[in-house]
Amino acid sequence: MTASWPHHVEIAVRWRDLDAFGHVNNAVYLSYLEVARVALWRSGMGGRDARDIPFVVARVEIDYRSAIELGETVRVELACESVGRRSFTLVYRILAGGRLAAEARSVQVCVDRNGATIPVPEALRAVLEQVAGPPAAR
Amino acid sequence: MTASWPHHVEIAVRWRDLDAFGHVNNAVYLSYLEVARVALWRSGMGGRDARDIPFVVARVEIDYRSAIELGETVRVELACESVGRRSFTLVYRILAGGRLAAEARSVQVCVDRNGATIPVPEALRAVLEQVAGPPAAR
Amino acid sequence: MTASWPHHVEIAVRWRDLDAFGHVNNAVYLSYLEVARVALWRSGMGGRDARDIPFVVARVEIDYRSAIELGETVRVELACESVGRRSFTLVYRILAGGRLAAEARSVQVCVDRNGATIPVPEALRAVLEQVAGPPAAR
Amino acid sequence: MTASWPHHVEIAVRWRDLDAFGHVNNAVYLSYLEVARVALWRSGMGGRDARDIPFVVARVEIDYRSAIELGETVRVELACESVGRRSFTLVYRILAGGRLAAEARSVQVCVDRNGATIPVPEALRAVLEQVAGPPAAR
Repeated sequence: MTASWPHHVEIAVRWRDLDAFGHVNNAVYLSYLEVARVALWRSGMGGRDARDIPFVVARVEIDYRSAIELGETVRVELACESVGRRSFTLVYRILAGGRLAAEARSVQVCVDRNGATIPVPEALRAVLEQVAGPPAAR
Repeated sequence: MTASWPHHVEIAVRWRDLDAFGHVNNAVYLSYLEVARVALWRSGMGGRDARDIPFVVARVEIDYRSAIELGETVRVELACESVGRRSFTLVYRILAGGRLAAEARSVQVCVDRNGATIPVPEALRAVLEQVAGPPAAR
Repeated sequence: MTASWPHHVEIAVRWRDLDAFGHVNNAVYLSYLEVARVALWRSGMGGRDARDIPFVVARVEIDYRSAIELGETVRVELACESVGRRSFTLVYRILAGGRLAAEARSVQVCVDRNGATIPVPEALRAVLEQVAGPPAAR
Repeated sequence: MTASWPHHVEIAVRWRDLDAFGHVNNAVYLSYLEVARVALWRSGMGGRDARDIPFVVARVEIDYRSAIELGETVRVELACESVGRRSFTLVYRILAGGRLAAEARSVQVCVDRNGATIPVPEALRAVLEQVAGPPAAR
């Protein structure tokens, strides 16, 4: 797990993230992926208004590898696996306390403000190219 | 979409389910799947204590087909696709306002109270057999 | 607890509402209040677009009376305690399994789409008058 | 707003914290308060297991002062206003981008693992004395 991923965020687990098992709930992992994805959009494209994000999630697949506990720092690593004409695929690794907690992949489709499908905007394509990956050593 | 699924729940969309796009957030769909899964466990096994659920989610894959709006009633249909020795696979269809909103699949691994993997308990296996599916016409 | 409140909604507890204690988390109670408030707005004013709600919450006070468990049906009762020029006050009672689970009060300030304070719109004032309360027998 | 509060945490706003208005939802503010409260318990008492927290929330009152946006860092400041025999009162200030976003107060009642009321444990009382406040300049 030492290879370098092109983009990552760190997230502090909140009490509200836990469920009745005392671990981070499975749906919350998707919110963690979203934090990494939105941070990429904001840092790369200077996005400001929350509603200007030019894509929606079309598919997610996630494999849960270990439970995440309160007090752990979560690190979400992200890379862009491929870019098509109107969609792109991101891959992720979630680490908690240095442990692999999940691996995931999501497909996004580009849309305009009315929800109509559009080609991947050039500014977004440039951002995605900067985070092409994941590292070969994965 | 008229074939009959063996198990379903209805869920009222809450304001908190929406995100800044004004639609139900992608992570919330997983909470909807969870409602159907937990209802199956409770109705079939008479489960009472929230912490007695004898399985954890190991994998989810979900395809988002349409956005869900405030005011819509969501219907989550569930069937058991297969049961292995220590795990089982569920498939789901989420409908909103009669429209297909998502299709999903999840793999669960059976565990004891300490999180150790165990064979699928007989009582759970019986419940899963009752919801074998999905319907062929899917 | 038999007096009749002018408005109510019923809410099914979701697994995601629980926290590590196995009870509904304290913040989720505010989402339950919100469901009742938004339902009032939608039913009374025919509101459709989620973003057209003409008020924001300025203050909430809530007294937690008992824990809410998975499997219980929650009933949120609502009444309008007072209407001012630019704000109004709602009171609530949350019941779970027929038990009193919380009592709350919220103050809302009317705003336009840009967030600027406005007088209470006439259509909203009419709705609030219909739910004046709470019942004296409280 | 320069007086020093005895305890604080910093929280990164997540996309999931927003609602359809594009701002942090009012219920999420309570989750922010909870992060500060749980951090106090963990740091002061060496708490590890999420379920060992020896108190429940009995009352919250919160005044919302300004909206919180995506991309802002939230700072929750906390102080202990008073300690009784079986309960204690905390006060909070939520800042976002240096701006006052909310002021709040919560009352907690001490309980054992079965939910029965108990006197404030000595170890907790010592922690609360260390964060007595808020600063006079408030």
